[in-house]
Amino acid sequence: MSKISPLSGFPELLPAQRAVEREVIASVSRTFELHGFANIETRVVEPIERLAKGGEVDKEIYVLQRIAAEPDTKAELGLHFDLTVPFARYVLEHAGHLEFPFRRFQVQPAWRGERPQEGRYRQFTQADVDIVGRDELPFHHDVEVMSVMVDALGRLPIPRVSFQFNNRKLIQGFYRGLGIDDVTDAIRVIDKLDKLPAEEVAAMLVERVGTTPEQAQRCLELATIRVEDTSFVEQVRALGVTDELLDQGLDELAAVVDGCRAVAGDRVGVEANLRIARGLDYYTGTVVEIFMEGYERLKSVGGGGRYDALASDGRTTYPGVGVSFGVSRTLIPLIADGVLEGSRPVPSAVLVALNTEDDRAASTGVAAALRSRDIACEVAPTPAKFGKQIRFAERRGIPYVWFVQPADDGGVTHQVKDIRTGEQVEADPSAWTPPKADQRPTIVSTAGFEAPLTSGHSARTSTTESTPRRSSDPHP
Amino acid sequence: MSKISPLSGFPELLPAQRAVEREVIASVSRTFELHGFANIETRVVEPIERLAKGGEVDKEIYVLQRIAAEPDTKAELGLHFDLTVPFARYVLEHAGHLEFPFRRFQVQPAWRGERPQEGRYRQFTQADVDIVGRDELPFHHDVEVMSVMVDALGRLPIPRVSFQFNNRKLIQGFYRGLGIDDVTDAIRVIDKLDKLPAEEVAAMLVERVGTTPEQAQRCLELATIRVEDTSFVEQVRALGVTDELLDQGLDELAAVVDGCRAVAGDRVGVEANLRIARGLDYYTGTVVEIFMEGYERLKSVGGGGRYDALASDGRTTYPGVGVSFGVSRTLIPLIADGVLEGSRPVPSAVLVALNTEDDRAASTGVAAALRSRDIACEVAPTPAKFGKQIRFAERRGIPYVWFVQPADDGGVTHQVKDIRTGEQVEADPSAWTPPKADQRPTIVSTAGFEAPLTSGHSARTSTTESTPRRSSDPHP
Repeated sequence: MSKISPLSGFPELLPAQRAVEREVIASVSRTFELHGFANIETRVVEPIERLAKGGEVDKEIYVLQRIAAEPDTKAELGLHFDLTVPFARYVLEHAGHLEFPFRRFQVQPAWRGERPQEGRYRQFTQADVDIVGRDELPFHHDVEVMSVMVDALGRLPIPRVSFQFNNRKLIQGFYRGLGIDDVTDAIRVIDKLDKLPAEEVAAMLVERVGTTPEQAQRCLELATIRVEDTSFVEQVRALGVTDELLDQGLDELAAVVDGCRAVAGDRVGVEANLRIARGLDYYTGTVVEIFMEGYERLKSVGGGGRYDALASDGRTTYPGVGVSFGVSRTLIPLIADGVLEGSRPVPSAVLVALNTEDDRAASTGVAAALRSRDIACEVAPTPAKFGKQIRFAERRGIPYVWFVQPADDGGVTHQVKDIRTGEQVEADPSAWTPPKADQRPTIVSTAGFEAPLTSGHSARTSTTESTPRRSSDPHP
Repeated sequence: MSKISPLSGFPELLPAQRAVEREVIASVSRTFELHGFANIETRVVEPIERLAKGGEVDKEIYVLQRIAAEPDTKAELGLHFDLTVPFARYVLEHAGHLEFPFRRFQVQPAWRGERPQEGRYRQFTQADVDIVGRDELPFHHDVEVMSVMVDALGRLPIPRVSFQFNNRKLIQGFYRGLGIDDVTDAIRVIDKLDKLPAEEVAAMLVERVGTTPEQAQRCLELATIRVEDTSFVEQVRALGVTDELLDQGLDELAAVVDGCRAVAGDRVGVEANLRIARGLDYYTGTVVEIFMEGYERLKSVGGGGRYDALASDGRTTYPGVGVSFGVSRTLIPLIADGVLEGSRPVPSAVLVALNTEDDRAASTGVAAALRSRDIACEVAPTPAKFGKQIRFAERRGIPYVWFVQPADDGGVTHQVKDIRTGEQVEADPSAWTPPKADQRPTIVSTAGFEAPLTSGHSARTSTTESTPRRSSDPHP
């Protein structure tokens, strides 16, 4: 068989690292469910004409073809590059079977044939949460869906994240109130502020968009407003521009910031940052980008907003609002840096030792008794010397070893050893239970990020432990 | 936007149907974990030369290419068509970071460009469980991994499944003991017994494999042995063939049947069926195919076996044993037939009603109190008349509606209504809890398949209910 080498851009996780990802997905999923969002999964392929919309991402689409296809067959399907395009199509296709407003979350991989780098992979997992209405969708859902993501991320043992909100109506109204005609073009230029110095951007506004130097100056002033509360309203008003759409945008942004602050603990920052525009043209109100402290180099680890026409079949329009969290983009760098790791690579809390191969049934019986009470365990593969069996458990991070020994009275005695402390006690397989913290693999945050993971499938976290690290590179 | 039509072979589930799939996946995953299997996820792409091995499945491979690739670029990647090929590659690539025997489970989609039909889709989800050793893997792991799948499927609310076991050593030893030279070819011919009459198969053995008519007769006699216990051992011995490998195969098969019978409740059948061969050449011992009662037309809904060379890098060989369960192949027909459905399409157990838009904060506060005690809920989207809000809940299958009303003393009163019975009682948002059966969507089996789903993420089942069905077609 040929030599194996990793595929660039297609990172894979070792078992203990995958445990981290599973716990994170279980936690955010449970938060979404607690807020009434239903899970869906879409097929991974879409017709190419639905994917390719003339945007930057088009050339990164992976197209698909049966290997046995005739040489000149035109490919018709491509892998989705986000979860929004398939969701919009799902809504249109299944609208007759859905109740609106439809609240869904979706955790799936997506694919982009881009140049791999830290935080950017060719296959990556996202967690999206959206609310979509039929014909209309009241604004309060903007506040709701953003609060849900604030709640979800605030429960993860990751560095502090910051939600930076803006509102397209605010920007558009401001520009319109200023007298700028080509608002979209102006937004595109202002969007370059994170790459170019302010003077250059101002010059481009004058040259490319045709603003006056004064208008350009005001645009820059607007774009530099960044506060952690609703004081931006006064700051914008102080710039002296009036416009109805601006007023509406200010109200909406203030409501989103207030609503999110109300649920953000100290692990999530909430800001109005009037420079955030998000390149995509379909946003029409709220926009957000999410950044992670110390990992600003990843750019945003999530984002989203309001789109008044998420989907349309010509007769009916479906407005939506939603936000996406980059699971791979966030976790893979944290795992690679050793900030997050799984407490052990196996689910087993107990290794049931084996005296001789003939005694396997006795050990299997103990394991069955433990499992019937939801304790994950495994039986030793061979009746090696007990010291060797203990080291077998140790290498896997299994905290307890169980011994079944013949007793003087012809029966058996049961003992369980905590191999970390060496403590060994008699135990009853139908009653003994390990401490809660040992029952499942947990996320160990070596940087001490503590967080109350939502009680999910198995969501639970422990803080820095002395467990030795096995491997920190996720082989991207 | 263009008209939407479903893509043949790429079925998608509505939210309540997806709830069924999620509960099933959560249940089997938890069972695997209880037995010490670690979850991994592999990238969905593999180099084409690793996928295409000259077998039947080769021409069904989907190859992948960036849309912007030069016209004559040779495609290098394809989507995996099962979870065994990527697992074997994962083991080779990450062997230095794994502990052996390595016990893993994997639940992911796979893709095959085959002609879609019931139970066969172009994208389908599988749940695989395998144990892989380095250099060697003791036989008792065959018993173990098969028992784990018996345990897992016995907990699902699906029709009774039957595990039909055989052993390649038994077949090969028998044929060799009979004096047949080309054992592999003989197996291939015998494998046609499910399509051709016995006489034709016998004739083919004589003509194609060169057996005597007597040898062919013995082969057919062997292939008709099918029992639910280990009495096959005597039946085979009665055929008068002796061979060392045959003895080993008989011992192994008896151990697998005994071991699986010990954990199979009355929801799982365990048989020795000496006709099962499984076409794939890499099996070297235990083989199994799983069938579902009443759904024999789907052919097997799962299968697997022992492969002494799952993977090899030239220096080291990794033997493995495992079994795969076809999640889509099993669930999509059951859902389409209305045998299984989700009790509701939303996770919410409670709809918090809204008096006026200005009262939204009060309702949101109640929702937050409920969520803090792990009760999924949502706030009504609009302050419609209460009758309309109740109907909103009804359409979603949400069992409870919560009312917050101004009280005479200037405070508020809280009442919760079970909209199925009409019963309405005062309740405290910090203490009231719905009955366990109402807390999460459950699987409703209209055929009355009750099963003790493994206590997983949310695994729980209810039996036949009067809940009206919303939609039973999974739109394949």
